[in-house]
Amino acid sequence: MKDLPLIVIINDDGHEAKGLASLIEAAKGLGRILVVAPDGPRSGMSHAITMTVPLRVKKLVEEENFTFYKTNGTPVDCVKLAERVLLKDEKIDLLISGINHGSNSATSVLYSGTMAAAIEASFANVPALGFSLLSFDPDADFTYSIKVARKIIKNVLKEGLPERVSLNINIPYVDEKDCKGMKITRQAKGYWKEELVPYEDPHGGIYYWLTGSFVNLDNEEDTDEWALANNYVSIQPVQDDMTAHQHINELKKWEEEID
Amino acid sequence: MKDLPLIVIINDDGHEAKGLASLIEAAKGLGRILVVAPDGPRSGMSHAITMTVPLRVKKLVEEENFTFYKTNGTPVDCVKLAERVLLKDEKIDLLISGINHGSNSATSVLYSGTMAAAIEASFANVPALGFSLLSFDPDADFTYSIKVARKIIKNVLKEGLPERVSLNINIPYVDEKDCKGMKITRQAKGYWKEELVPYEDPHGGIYYWLTGSFVNLDNEEDTDEWALANNYVSIQPVQDDMTAHQHINELKKWEEEID
Repeated sequence: MKDLPLIVIINDDGHEAKGLASLIEAAKGLGRILVVAPDGPRSGMSHAITMTVPLRVKKLVEEENFTFYKTNGTPVDCVKLAERVLLKDEKIDLLISGINHGSNSATSVLYSGTMAAAIEASFANVPALGFSLLSFDPDADFTYSIKVARKIIKNVLKEGLPERVSLNINIPYVDEKDCKGMKITRQAKGYWKEELVPYEDPHGGIYYWLTGSFVNLDNEEDTDEWALANNYVSIQPVQDDMTAHQHINELKKWEEEID
Repeated sequence: MKDLPLIVIINDDGHEAKGLASLIEAAKGLGRILVVAPDGPRSGMSHAITMTVPLRVKKLVEEENFTFYKTNGTPVDCVKLAERVLLKDEKIDLLISGINHGSNSATSVLYSGTMAAAIEASFANVPALGFSLLSFDPDADFTYSIKVARKIIKNVLKEGLPERVSLNINIPYVDEKDCKGMKITRQAKGYWKEELVPYEDPHGGIYYWLTGSFVNLDNEEDTDEWALANNYVSIQPVQDDMTAHQHINELKKWEEEID
């Protein structure tokens, strides 16, 4: 069975999420599959790793070419556990993450556990894909997104990806007939504007739920936001260098000025 | 007192960390200070936000031009609470984060709660600085790093920063006389190689602690790793666009191919 490609599947909505079952379905038959999923919701966990409590893993399913574990960790912990504990450094041919319940376009890529898992895998030069469907409904219809994911998975298994690059794939929540195709995009510039409404508990204590809405500052036609608003699947190639290269020269004067 | 600049201070090691007290000391007298710190260690929390439990804030100190809150949230939650709840959208003149106990150079910027707080503030065009000292010792000597931080804080209060750019400042743990100055740097390419050693609990259960070492793949003289290894303070300008722009054209063919 060693000839089949080794596919690792991660998510951030937890091992019981419909989006995870959908991604497993999308990859079925394409390789030996190892699923490592958090034991509950880990949305908005970004690239967090668990340092203050120990990690545990529990095997839930073992069948031919299909093994499924849950863990108390974050999505990035799941990747590290897969690589180092469960696979003992066996080479992973493809890591796929999702399908996330809700968009991870634009600035959301920074908050996303789904995409952090893909980026983490790309550090080891594993081709990695994060999938998100533009519906937060836990019971959303994933039929079309499964077809899209399977097409892209097959393509990446065949063609690979550039070194240390992962793909952030967002899928509009529309009928298949209304989807206009795929666009290679860049991350739109924007930010999340929070609403932190105060609540009062029965003992008089005040608490807040974090919620907000995305403010888009960037409507160019090459952005992920534009593609999604126009019913295209958005495919953003992602890398991990956060340096503001364009400002290095203007800041060079500080080397003398501050010292 | 409205004429004094408004300075918000965040960290990820928690409200009792020596590094936080050190950063407060570095900023003392330079403005009205609001501290919002997690109620315990939040290392490695990256850009995580809290979505499954409500957020609470508690005022610990209120003096003239100095207010100090703790919260159960992540470093990024602290920024959002400061902006939206505690300051009710009053314009922040400077956000500073740290001083972190341990390096946040190279790929660590992606895992860092310290830097995530700075990046979050930069979304609202607040000049933002993350400081890290290259010692994990909870009782490290911050004397020199306080001097460095104060110099840089003063400079940024005077000159500002480019729009939507924050600075990732790493300070070598050496005597002042051995520090060679400041370097504007870029993020070195590398990755964290984990060691997940199995432990057994008294009931026979197996668990793992996440730990690892950084593998540097990039020793060029313009990197943060080179600067720190050569006893320079590293100042990396950071932005939030994670798009792999250099690969957009080669991937464009997929738009037809996959569809």
